[in-house]
Amino acid sequence: MTTVLKLGGSVITDKDRAETVDGESLERAAAAIADAVSDSTETDGGLVVVHGGGSFGHPAADAHGVTTTAGTDDAGAVTEIHAAMTALNGFVRRALLERGVEALPVYPLSLAARNREGDLALPTESVETMLEEGFVPVVQGDMVTHAGRGATVVSGDELVAELARGLDADRVGLCSTVPGVLDDERVVDRIDSLADVESVLGGSESTDVTGGMRGKVETLLGLETPASIFGLEGLEGFLAGEDVGTTVG
Amino acid sequence: MTTVLKLGGSVITDKDRAETVDGESLERAAAAIADAVSDSTETDGGLVVVHGGGSFGHPAADAHGVTTTAGTDDAGAVTEIHAAMTALNGFVRRALLERGVEALPVYPLSLAARNREGDLALPTESVETMLEEGFVPVVQGDMVTHAGRGATVVSGDELVAELARGLDADRVGLCSTVPGVLDDERVVDRIDSLADVESVLGGSESTDVTGGMRGKVETLLGLETPASIFGLEGLEGFLAGEDVGTTVG
Repeated sequence: MTTVLKLGGSVITDKDRAETVDGESLERAAAAIADAVSDSTETDGGLVVVHGGGSFGHPAADAHGVTTTAGTDDAGAVTEIHAAMTALNGFVRRALLERGVEALPVYPLSLAARNREGDLALPTESVETMLEEGFVPVVQGDMVTHAGRGATVVSGDELVAELARGLDADRVGLCSTVPGVLDDERVVDRIDSLADVESVLGGSESTDVTGGMRGKVETLLGLETPASIFGLEGLEGFLAGEDVGTTVG
Repeated sequence: MTTVLKLGGSVITDKDRAETVDGESLERAAAAIADAVSDSTETDGGLVVVHGGGSFGHPAADAHGVTTTAGTDDAGAVTEIHAAMTALNGFVRRALLERGVEALPVYPLSLAARNREGDLALPTESVETMLEEGFVPVVQGDMVTHAGRGATVVSGDELVAELARGLDADRVGLCSTVPGVLDDERVVDRIDSLADVESVLGGSESTDVTGGMRGKVETLLGLETPASIFGLEGLEGFLAGEDVGTTVG
């Protein structure tokens, strides 16, 4: 049972203060992961943690005008955005290491690249060997080099999708700031197609640079792997194999 | 013309003081690289810089008893050794960035892995795209996960060999603390086989954990790519396409 878990950038950082971790939420997420890994019935095929940018990656990316499609040739700018994400990656890994989770960093800038069409090549040898050896890879949203455009942003959501495919994962979970996809205040249990929830998700105006809820649902619908969207209160249940939040696809 | 250049750890660090850069040598190397990149006749197919550990990686690796074959399952230990190398990588990139070289980091821990036989898988998509986009990848000696052994050391020399193969490089250069392979005080111009220089290189007692001069020559003899071993004073000439130091293979 290989699980790919994304911790949303908004969940583990304070989105209103630049480069500030939401310590309480990060501790809570790390504790749930540590419990699941030490119990290991649900995660014995390995757990990959992916995290977004929150108040670390986004301000730096905005300052340099880079997105998933608008690139830069300036290595100083790439380095600055990458370093902001690496700092957050360090906080996530430290919280996990302190709880006995053998977390190792994975930086997509070193690993992945986009071709001219923007498709991501993400070789999985390193992550697979980490999993086989009992480590927990912690993969960050990052910059990647992009044929013809210098370097562009790669979002946590995109990494989740590529890793789920590349590792043939059994489960995908997106831990978000909301308890699932919401219809008014009620969590939608299950989404099988985008048409089902068009009215709930709204149009493209609700997407941000690295994909809002609509983008997440679209990405997850494109996967073979069953996926869930849930809030921090659902993380423990998800890692225990329960259906939590909204199940997609 | 794709060139893989290794800056020896002993060249750019003060081997006698833990985690100390040899600022003068690093500046000199960075200046030579910046000149070559801005001139670009010899490096227009791209330049990959690889660096060893020197006083950064080796003490941390020794403290945890890890080598290229003796591994660890302790993510804290892996992280500590990796972080020491990453710090040196930052110094190298900063020296290059300050001179207008668009240097980006490449961390083998994120990218590569060893199988049970110890063979290194090093996917090249990221480095190739960096080169195509005009960046200069700066690859560090590092830790990599190793099937059955947790994580082990990967040396700069091994990375040079794998990159030369994977990128089908045209030239390889090892910038060392000596002006080439020495026979007494004379630089040996050319080595075609290990037997030629058995008396000069001595036996296995002259090798260190990540390969002394004997290991370097053996590695370079195994490559299709022409290679040179030279000192810092030869770097400018090497990058200008000249034969400097000892030519191997």
